[in-house]
Amino acid sequence: MLLKFSGKGYGFLFMKILVAGLGLIGASIAKALKKYTDNYIMGFNRTFSVAEKALEDGAIDETGDLSELLGKADLTIVNYYPDAIVPFVLENKDFIKRGSIVTDSCGVKSRICRTLEKEKLQFTFIGAHPMAGKEVSGYDNSTADLFSGASFICTPTCADESRVQTLVSLAKSMGFAKTVVTTPEHHDEMIAFTSQIAHVLACSYVLSPLAPQHADFSAGSYRDVSRVAKINGEMWSELFIDNKFALIREIDDLTKNLKLFRNAIEQEDSAELIRLMQIANKIKEEVG
Amino acid sequence: MLLKFSGKGYGFLFMKILVAGLGLIGASIAKALKKYTDNYIMGFNRTFSVAEKALEDGAIDETGDLSELLGKADLTIVNYYPDAIVPFVLENKDFIKRGSIVTDSCGVKSRICRTLEKEKLQFTFIGAHPMAGKEVSGYDNSTADLFSGASFICTPTCADESRVQTLVSLAKSMGFAKTVVTTPEHHDEMIAFTSQIAHVLACSYVLSPLAPQHADFSAGSYRDVSRVAKINGEMWSELFIDNKFALIREIDDLTKNLKLFRNAIEQEDSAELIRLMQIANKIKEEVG
Repeated sequence: MLLKFSGKGYGFLFMKILVAGLGLIGASIAKALKKYTDNYIMGFNRTFSVAEKALEDGAIDETGDLSELLGKADLTIVNYYPDAIVPFVLENKDFIKRGSIVTDSCGVKSRICRTLEKEKLQFTFIGAHPMAGKEVSGYDNSTADLFSGASFICTPTCADESRVQTLVSLAKSMGFAKTVVTTPEHHDEMIAFTSQIAHVLACSYVLSPLAPQHADFSAGSYRDVSRVAKINGEMWSELFIDNKFALIREIDDLTKNLKLFRNAIEQEDSAELIRLMQIANKIKEEVG
Repeated sequence: MLLKFSGKGYGFLFMKILVAGLGLIGASIAKALKKYTDNYIMGFNRTFSVAEKALEDGAIDETGDLSELLGKADLTIVNYYPDAIVPFVLENKDFIKRGSIVTDSCGVKSRICRTLEKEKLQFTFIGAHPMAGKEVSGYDNSTADLFSGASFICTPTCADESRVQTLVSLAKSMGFAKTVVTTPEHHDEMIAFTSQIAHVLACSYVLSPLAPQHADFSAGSYRDVSRVAKINGEMWSELFIDNKFALIREIDDLTKNLKLFRNAIEQEDSAELIRLMQIANKIKEEVG
């Protein structure tokens, strides 16, 4: 890592950064890094035409042969599907620059981080989850401001504090409003609740036989609950299975709570319904 | 009803309209009628100071004794909790102007409409549901533009077509984007799906033990699914119980679909997960 400070953003070490995978998240990362930092941004994409497009757009400074790019990068950010992260790192471990940092952007962390923790690597892997997305995917939907106001979660296992801080500073300079350092397990437990079950719910909801007739009778509630049913099933099935224990616990909790409502409605027990809704209302008022 | 056409909006008969109940919905109706039509708007509220405030604000043209107002109104719009609609109409039936129209604004329709259909009344009751709301309630949150872009559902049982059209035209002039005339039963079945279960879900969701820790880990999904957990338990318990059969069917359907996801996740059956999500994705793409 060269000891030259960036002129933009929070001011951190000047780095050569490789963004591997230029889909929605990867390309948005590349664009944010180009827009808000002075680092040198290299890009790689399996479909080469996408990397060429990124180069033309100025989203990256360089593309080329993967092993050569990996050998030059002080930081490599891997933006693939969950099940492809560990294979990418292990298959390329001999090409990755000695002493560099490797991170990822996928939405589950325990299996990836705990697997790579056990490997003898000449670089440091720090799992990360930039919590942003869209209902559309691919390079063409990427934007430098995707992370504005979002949370950046970082789940180091055996990294030096200084390396974690390099990553956190970089995230801040990209526009993330909040940066959180926690364990992979705590991340996965929380994400099962805040994100994954909302996706399971949205899909389960629109599977109702009444969904096709909703238009005349729907307002904000239908729109909000069903929004993320526009989903990439291939990616989310990997995320769900990778986090099965935490997610099943959330599904079971939700099912149990739905049953409390169902029973109170069936018994026309308004006191119980009011009690349940008062608790929910209080939680929503207190924690947002 | 006087045969004078309004100078604003869609042009319908000039009427004396009584808005009974000046909470969020009632007062927004009064304000919309004042802003977008030339009708004469009377207001009644059990807490008299609210009606006085509405008069000062110009949200209504007149307030006073309920029986006198009812005797003058060509159209009375009843904006009370679900269980209070039928008692209000029956207790006041001898004061309500002969030949006038009475409607309401509550979110369930079958029980109310089918009960009043059986009564011998000297006026016509037409159930209605202006599909708009906020997470806050009361006169102070009311606004003339609450209905802009919303659906107005009207569920006549034994009304003349011309009277239904009077109500529908009035709704259009108030800013509703869509007006639907259907049966009370179809309304209630659809509302169980598009609105009620979303409220049951939001409450069930925030009852998770993880909700208090969500802030660092949440993005749009948590916000959207939990939004309507800020709820008025007293009112919604009446709505849920009034529509128990349709709502329980939706809860059971949702629980069954959640179980399909749960089982596929437990068995790590990615083909089944992808299949379920592809169906959901297709429904969302086709019906919005």
